[in-house]
Amino acid sequence: MPAFSRFTPLIASLPSTVPFVGPEAIERQTGSPVRARIGANESGFGPAPSVIEAIGKAALETWKYADPENFELKQALAAHLGCKPENIAVGEGVDAILGLIVRMVIEPGAPVVNSFGGYPTFNYHVAGFGGRLVTVPYESDRENPAALLEATKRENAPLVYFANPDNPMGSWRSAAEVEAFAKAVPEDSLLVLDEAYIECAPEGTAPSIASLIDRPNVIRTRTFSKAYGLAGARVGYAIGAPETIKAFDKIRNHFGMARISVAAALAALKDQAYLASVLGKIEASRQRIGTIARANGFEPRPSATNFVAVDCGRDGDYARAIVTGLGEKGVFIRMPGVAPLNRCIRVSTGTEADMALLEETLPDVLKAL
Amino acid sequence: MPAFSRFTPLIASLPSTVPFVGPEAIERQTGSPVRARIGANESGFGPAPSVIEAIGKAALETWKYADPENFELKQALAAHLGCKPENIAVGEGVDAILGLIVRMVIEPGAPVVNSFGGYPTFNYHVAGFGGRLVTVPYESDRENPAALLEATKRENAPLVYFANPDNPMGSWRSAAEVEAFAKAVPEDSLLVLDEAYIECAPEGTAPSIASLIDRPNVIRTRTFSKAYGLAGARVGYAIGAPETIKAFDKIRNHFGMARISVAAALAALKDQAYLASVLGKIEASRQRIGTIARANGFEPRPSATNFVAVDCGRDGDYARAIVTGLGEKGVFIRMPGVAPLNRCIRVSTGTEADMALLEETLPDVLKAL
Repeated sequence: MPAFSRFTPLIASLPSTVPFVGPEAIERQTGSPVRARIGANESGFGPAPSVIEAIGKAALETWKYADPENFELKQALAAHLGCKPENIAVGEGVDAILGLIVRMVIEPGAPVVNSFGGYPTFNYHVAGFGGRLVTVPYESDRENPAALLEATKRENAPLVYFANPDNPMGSWRSAAEVEAFAKAVPEDSLLVLDEAYIECAPEGTAPSIASLIDRPNVIRTRTFSKAYGLAGARVGYAIGAPETIKAFDKIRNHFGMARISVAAALAALKDQAYLASVLGKIEASRQRIGTIARANGFEPRPSATNFVAVDCGRDGDYARAIVTGLGEKGVFIRMPGVAPLNRCIRVSTGTEADMALLEETLPDVLKAL
Repeated sequence: MPAFSRFTPLIASLPSTVPFVGPEAIERQTGSPVRARIGANESGFGPAPSVIEAIGKAALETWKYADPENFELKQALAAHLGCKPENIAVGEGVDAILGLIVRMVIEPGAPVVNSFGGYPTFNYHVAGFGGRLVTVPYESDRENPAALLEATKRENAPLVYFANPDNPMGSWRSAAEVEAFAKAVPEDSLLVLDEAYIECAPEGTAPSIASLIDRPNVIRTRTFSKAYGLAGARVGYAIGAPETIKAFDKIRNHFGMARISVAAALAALKDQAYLASVLGKIEASRQRIGTIARANGFEPRPSATNFVAVDCGRDGDYARAIVTGLGEKGVFIRMPGVAPLNRCIRVSTGTEADMALLEETLPDVLKAL
C-alpha cells in the first residue's frame, strides 16, 4: 500500500527513522533485560524522594491539562536562575525546544552549523526543516568555538549549535571562552547554547545568566532530564531575551506539557540538597568508570557531564563491537556516531550495581573480540 | 529590546499567543480559585483508580526515557482497536499530532479546509505552517461533510479537517455519513478525522476501524484526554494506513512521550469497566446540564461528547457575559469563538458538586446581566 500521495516534497524526501535505538528495543531484540542502563545519560540515581512524593500528589490532578502558560514553573526557574519569567520558555524536553528553534529560523536550503559528530537530534530537526548542515571538526575531542564561528560567518548561517558541556564527548569549554564565543556570533545568526549537562560541570563552565540574557541571538537550553533524574518527564527550558523567547508562543504546543511532569520539575528544582548529593554520586561514578577503563587498557576522556567517553584506542568497528558485546551481557551503553570520536564508547554514570556489572563484563567482552 | 532579527518571514508574521486561556490564568486574574472546572472538556470524574496505581509504580522509573517506539502502547491500542501496531502513531496529545500532520502536508499558501468555528488548535497549526484556511459554515450546529467535500475539491486542498463528534458543538454525524464522506475525499487530499470524543458518542457514530484503515489519505486521531480522564498526561494517537503513519517517524519528537503518561494510558486502556462507568456519569451529567439550561430558559444542543453546547438564544456578547459572570463566581466554562455558534456557551460534564454550583450560580449571573 502506498503512502499518502501529496506529502510536501521535503517530507517525502525524509527517511522514517528512530534516531536512537532505545534500551527497550534492545531488550525486545535480545529477549533479555537490560541489567545496567547506562547508555542514554539518564540518571540511575533517580529523582529526589520529594519528587516521587510530588508525583503521587499530582497524579490525582492528571485529569486536568497543565497550565498552558507554565506560569509557576517559569516563576520558579526565573527565581532560581536570577532572571525574569519572560526570559524562559518551557517545552517537552530540550529535543522539542530544538525542533521549535530550527523551525523558527530555517527555511529549506539554509545553512546550519554544528560540530561534526555533535548532537544528532539537533541534526534530525535541521533535516526535518530542510536545512543544510555545515559541520566543523572537534578539536582534541572538544567542540571548537573558533571554527564554529568561522563557519557561521563564512556561510552567513542563521543558526549555529554549540553544546557546553558537550555530548557525546563530555568535554567542555570555560565560561570565559563560551561567553566570548557567544558575543562574537553575528547578530543575525542565532546561537543555541545547549547546556543540558551544565549541573554536572565544574564551577566556571557556565557563563552567568546575566552575561548573555540581553542578546536576542542567543538561546540557552537546559533540562530536568539529566542531573535532576527526570528524563522520562520531558521537561526542558530555553533561556533568552524576552522578545526572542516570545517567539516560542507562536508555534509551540501550548498544551504539550504533562501536568505530573511539571509538578515533578517544580519539586526537583526545590530540592537542591538532593541535586547536590546526586552530583557527588555522578562525580564518584565518573571516577569509577575511569578506573574500570584504565584497568582494561582504555583512556577515559575528561568529563563535565553524567557520562564518560572512553577512548578504546582503535576504530569505530572496534568500539561498536564493544557496545554490542556489552549489550549482549545486559550492559546498555552507546558510542559517538562518527570518526574520530567513534574510537570511544560512551558510558553513563550509574549506581554501584551498574558499575560493578560493567567492571565484571567488560574484560569478558574484550577477551571475546 | 528587539527579537532575533532573522526569524523566517513566516515566523516573523505570526502573533505570539496562548490559543486558550487556561483556568490557572483565570485564577491568577481573579485572585480566587476555580470551584467548578467545567470549561476545557477535561474529565472531572478523573482517571481510574487502577491508573493512579500505575502512575505510582511508574514514578520510580521516571528517570528513564520512555520507549521511543512506543511499542507496548501501540501493541495494546492495536489489540483494542483491531488493527496492527503499524497502523498507529503515538504523540503528545492530539494537538501535537495535528501539528505534525499539518507539517507533513502544508507548504506556505496551501489551502486547508475546516468548518468555520471548528477546532481552533488545528487552525493554529495551519497558520503556523503558513497554510491558507478555507472554511465552510456549520449546518444546524453540525459540521457539514458535503460542504467540506465541495470546498476540498474546489480548492484542490491537500488537507481537510473533520471532527466527529464535533467540538465545540458536541454534534455528530452517523458512521455511515462519515464513512461515505471519508471515501469521497479525493485521494490526494488528506482527511483528518478527529475522534477525540468518540468514546462518549452513541453506538453507530464511529465508522469501523477496518472501513477506513486501508485509505492512505485518512488519518483518524483519538486521545486519552477526554473519556479516559488523562488530559494532563498528553497521550494521543493517530490511526491510518501503515505507509502514511510511517511519515510521523520522519518528523516527530521520538523521545517526546512522558514515561508516566504512557504507563497511565496503558492502565487506562486496560480498565474498560472504569471507562464504562465514566460514560454513564458523562451521560447523566449531560442530562443535568440540559435540565439546568432549560430551567434558565436556554436550549441544550444534543451532545455526543463530554460537554454540552447550550444555546442562550442571543448573540456572542450575551454568551460571553455569561461566561465571564460564571467565571467570576468560580465556574470555569468556555464558548464557541464565532457566530452563529457563539450564541452558545459550552459546559463540560462534571461531578455533582460541579453541576450543583452551576445550578446555583447561573440564575444569579443571568439576573445581573
